[in-house]
Amino acid sequence: MQFFKVKTVEETFALIEEYIPVTPHKEVRVLEEALHYILAEPVVAKENVPSFDRSTVDGYAVKAKDTYGSSESMPGFLTITGEVKMGEVPHSVVAPGNAVYVPTGGMMPSGSDSVIMIEHCEDLDGLLNTYKQIAPGENVIRAGEDIKEGETLLTTGTKLRPQELGALASLGITHVTVFRQLKVGYLSSGDEIVPYQTETLQEGQIRDINHLTISGLAREWNVDVVYGGIVRDDFEVFRQKAKELYDQVDCLILSGGSSVGAKDYTTEVIQSLGNPGVFVHGISIKPGKPTILAMADGKPVIGLPGHPASAMIIFRLFGERILRKLMGEKVERKPERIFARITKNIPSSPGRSDYIRVRLVEKEGEWWAEPIIGKSGLITTLVKSDGIVEISSEKEGISQGEYVPVIASR
Amino acid sequence: MQFFKVKTVEETFALIEEYIPVTPHKEVRVLEEALHYILAEPVVAKENVPSFDRSTVDGYAVKAKDTYGSSESMPGFLTITGEVKMGEVPHSVVAPGNAVYVPTGGMMPSGSDSVIMIEHCEDLDGLLNTYKQIAPGENVIRAGEDIKEGETLLTTGTKLRPQELGALASLGITHVTVFRQLKVGYLSSGDEIVPYQTETLQEGQIRDINHLTISGLAREWNVDVVYGGIVRDDFEVFRQKAKELYDQVDCLILSGGSSVGAKDYTTEVIQSLGNPGVFVHGISIKPGKPTILAMADGKPVIGLPGHPASAMIIFRLFGERILRKLMGEKVERKPERIFARITKNIPSSPGRSDYIRVRLVEKEGEWWAEPIIGKSGLITTLVKSDGIVEISSEKEGISQGEYVPVIASR
Repeated sequence: MQFFKVKTVEETFALIEEYIPVTPHKEVRVLEEALHYILAEPVVAKENVPSFDRSTVDGYAVKAKDTYGSSESMPGFLTITGEVKMGEVPHSVVAPGNAVYVPTGGMMPSGSDSVIMIEHCEDLDGLLNTYKQIAPGENVIRAGEDIKEGETLLTTGTKLRPQELGALASLGITHVTVFRQLKVGYLSSGDEIVPYQTETLQEGQIRDINHLTISGLAREWNVDVVYGGIVRDDFEVFRQKAKELYDQVDCLILSGGSSVGAKDYTTEVIQSLGNPGVFVHGISIKPGKPTILAMADGKPVIGLPGHPASAMIIFRLFGERILRKLMGEKVERKPERIFARITKNIPSSPGRSDYIRVRLVEKEGEWWAEPIIGKSGLITTLVKSDGIVEISSEKEGISQGEYVPVIASR
Repeated sequence: MQFFKVKTVEETFALIEEYIPVTPHKEVRVLEEALHYILAEPVVAKENVPSFDRSTVDGYAVKAKDTYGSSESMPGFLTITGEVKMGEVPHSVVAPGNAVYVPTGGMMPSGSDSVIMIEHCEDLDGLLNTYKQIAPGENVIRAGEDIKEGETLLTTGTKLRPQELGALASLGITHVTVFRQLKVGYLSSGDEIVPYQTETLQEGQIRDINHLTISGLAREWNVDVVYGGIVRDDFEVFRQKAKELYDQVDCLILSGGSSVGAKDYTTEVIQSLGNPGVFVHGISIKPGKPTILAMADGKPVIGLPGHPASAMIIFRLFGERILRKLMGEKVERKPERIFARITKNIPSSPGRSDYIRVRLVEKEGEWWAEPIIGKSGLITTLVKSDGIVEISSEKEGISQGEYVPVIASR
């Protein structure tokens, strides 16, 4: 077998960038069922939004220059000549010296260029007293000011958040071409691993909890997870089960068996699935060193460490990045990391990236990250945590009060 | 009709705390389908996790004192007397001077109190050279060290993230009692509003985009949304449609019609649904002043402003808080807000809370929030944004470089 050199976190990210492709599978979805999908085609506006000049307030459509010089002490006077109703084309034309009532969202009558808010004027039996001067265009959204006909509204790779759906709806677009939901297979291995439903454990047995944690994290990224069960440490059985699951999915996750030991078949199983095979075998990271990343004939394969806490941290760091690359997400939107100040000194070894579970506490308008004490194998340290602090490999630790990046729970 | 005084943001939060109850509806869900549900009962551990003393590394189980004095230059010597297999009860007992191989996760053989990692020793034909001294308990997780029998693992009101599901699975718990998924009704009103599927708009018409944006935000909180359609500005039709939808759901959202104007039936419709009725009518906030919050016979009713951007901001601020209170979420986990530095001075009026759309840019390990220029009615300002900066009501604006709280997109 090939010899693999342990990679740094940065090298691993670069290799993910290089090796992981965008899924070729696209589908058309109706807008109501497209939340959090990724656009597979750009969207070009076929019309202006809004399609007409609209008032943004309740008020009177006027010619701005007719209000010049108006003030509380020296009001101007205009003649009210009509009213615009919502959803209707105004009959009235605003001639010099005239004003027409227009509600919020109503269409601007021709001849007018601005709207004086009802708070700044007074209707005295058809005579409008104006108490403020306004500028041309004030309180008006022009046709096309939000979205211009012909403009590329959204590019390929954009994740559809609620506001993107809203923008699409404003154009009357009902269907979008998106990348199909990813299907990810998850398979546990290890002679000691039993289904989590096992009521009474035999001595030495461990329930399969990574299935729940890793599936949960993947589902948070709109991924469909297929559970392949648990295989014992038998190369041929493992290979066969892995291949079966691999054939059904877009990406395969194997948990356990990735540390160097007598029963470590994971690497061989992964190599058997396709080319080019393993591109990362071991990362200089704590926890989670025995991580395997591979590409097998167009599908990513991820070998996670068996420890629940390590598996979760590795998945959040590298698994999520692989899935997002694969699902075609290009436009980064929300902050991937937040920044907080660490509450105590933490030493670390240079050349290795450390990830520390923390609780976040707000003090005087800042987040402080309080390390959680406990061995890395304990699932409860993650239950108590709000996120993970990253100590990058070039650092020899972090000092109390220092700003550090935190990968927050979702 | 009652006269309502405009509330501050802080008063509104306090009133939500006071008026909104926790839903009484519970259900039992299998763990695989409980992600992001809220626990309706505490979970007490019925056993220890782990159920036995385990090694956290690949190495040799020893008596720690047998390694005392060992170093690279002065190794200690122990006799290897056996091997622990994964998932099996060890046959061997570790007598003084002896060592037994144990893999990561393997059960500790009796007589041993610690594990020396394989990296720190060497097997020379059955004689183990130890190059490091270790402490009692080193590289061992004790039975019950993660979760203790009888301990309350999770309390009522805890949101089930992937790690909570993992902790439950580690106890062999397969089903949990959670608060039932909330059902929220959404109804648009306004003579100018037409279904978003409308291909060609008549002059003055607007597509119903709040339906997509508000439903999307609610779905991000694991809420089922029932769309009630669009009603014209006719009190009796509006009241009837609202009542029909109200009867089917746990919470009702009405959009549009909440500004003070001739066609403002929303307040009357809400008051007709039940008691105690409206508790907030108008908030000193920009954008989004004409917001209505009510409790009608045990169900919250939210009247959102019609402007898409205002409606989204108001929903993120108050709607989400109402839903989370209603769905029983008590244990706050992730940071609700991040902190960023503002890239320019922004004035604001004291006594009113302002919410500014921003793009987040990372500079030298800090987030900077860059205000997005554009009128508040434009949906594209939200498409361009990563979050919303809050300028609280006691401030007269914020200065360049100041740290400000940001409500980030999800």
